[in-house]
Amino acid sequence: MKEAKFIVLEGLEGSGKSTALKTITATLRAAGIEKIKSTREPGGSVIGEKIRLLIKKEHRNEDLQNMAELLLLYAARIQLTNDIIKPALKEGVWMVSDRYDMSSQAYQGGGRGISPNLISTLKTQVLGEFKPDLTFYLDVDPKVGLKRVCNRGQQLDRIEKMGIDFFDRTRKRYLELSNSDSNTIVIDAEKEIDLVNCDIRRALILWLNKQ
Amino acid sequence: MKEAKFIVLEGLEGSGKSTALKTITATLRAAGIEKIKSTREPGGSVIGEKIRLLIKKEHRNEDLQNMAELLLLYAARIQLTNDIIKPALKEGVWMVSDRYDMSSQAYQGGGRGISPNLISTLKTQVLGEFKPDLTFYLDVDPKVGLKRVCNRGQQLDRIEKMGIDFFDRTRKRYLELSNSDSNTIVIDAEKEIDLVNCDIRRALILWLNKQ
Repeated sequence: MKEAKFIVLEGLEGSGKSTALKTITATLRAAGIEKIKSTREPGGSVIGEKIRLLIKKEHRNEDLQNMAELLLLYAARIQLTNDIIKPALKEGVWMVSDRYDMSSQAYQGGGRGISPNLISTLKTQVLGEFKPDLTFYLDVDPKVGLKRVCNRGQQLDRIEKMGIDFFDRTRKRYLELSNSDSNTIVIDAEKEIDLVNCDIRRALILWLNKQ
Repeated sequence: MKEAKFIVLEGLEGSGKSTALKTITATLRAAGIEKIKSTREPGGSVIGEKIRLLIKKEHRNEDLQNMAELLLLYAARIQLTNDIIKPALKEGVWMVSDRYDMSSQAYQGGGRGISPNLISTLKTQVLGEFKPDLTFYLDVDPKVGLKRVCNRGQQLDRIEKMGIDFFDRTRKRYLELSNSDSNTIVIDAEKEIDLVNCDIRRALILWLNKQ
């Protein structure tokens, strides 16, 4: 059997990551892979989920500062990577994650404007050479994505309330990162949901055949 | 009136920081300084206190990793510095903090063995040139300090449960840092509590006269 792999989904709010995650899991199962575990960022571990709440929620009379947000994200990432992802891969379990390191580079680097050098230093310290085997970046215009989010009718979190400019900068960085990383496949996620999932399934099958 | 200053207390568990904090506040008041605020690390801000809980408590089936602990500490420090300390100083309020950046260098650098370069990078990114005007390091043999902590009869937190070697390394680094920083005064905190507080009061009065 093939060595277990680490697959990541990236994209803006409303890009369809949750549905894509189900598509990927189903495609892996259909390909005969039985041991699969899904996770998410920020979160995925006991401590990581507590950090997620700190990041997503609003706090009485106090704004979470950009640099603090970045450090919290990496703290959660360390816990997830070392406590969940690496041990699972070692045991032959395929991991599929809703977001990973590219999110910090896109949102904190692109969106918030934190120096890419600092993010890069943190990444090296925290992850070393570890990285996803395959990333799907679901590309969507923020206007389209945010409209989908609003249509869900749920209350928006601290990130979802950011302005369109923030998401435009985030998307721009996502595209730059995706285009310069040979392990990332860009999916046009503005199409109809069925077509998007066909594209993901097809790309994943082709990739699996090459492994 | 003198410009507001930022005074920090550093030292191992059981070195007497809480009592020293009261001594400092009383001495400042006696010197005619009316606007004084005390705080603590990790914590001191709304978000910082939530991070404090993550650091101090134990988590079900999951250990907080050293690097995650370091990032959480700096995340809390950003919030405290920018939301509480700097605005207070600007308004002429003297700040006295139970622990600050030297704690990370001593505990995470010395105790946990994290690279001083990484801690230095974080410090620069987070604090820039900002630093305490005066630090008291209350020096105590870990055996003496931990005995005092045990005598309090309270349940020990995650840090207080560390072994004596950890605290020996932390103390060693504390002494190195204190001896190389002209803004730090080392206090022998193994003496009787009344003598310790006399030493602190005397040193603080001399320092105030020089400002």
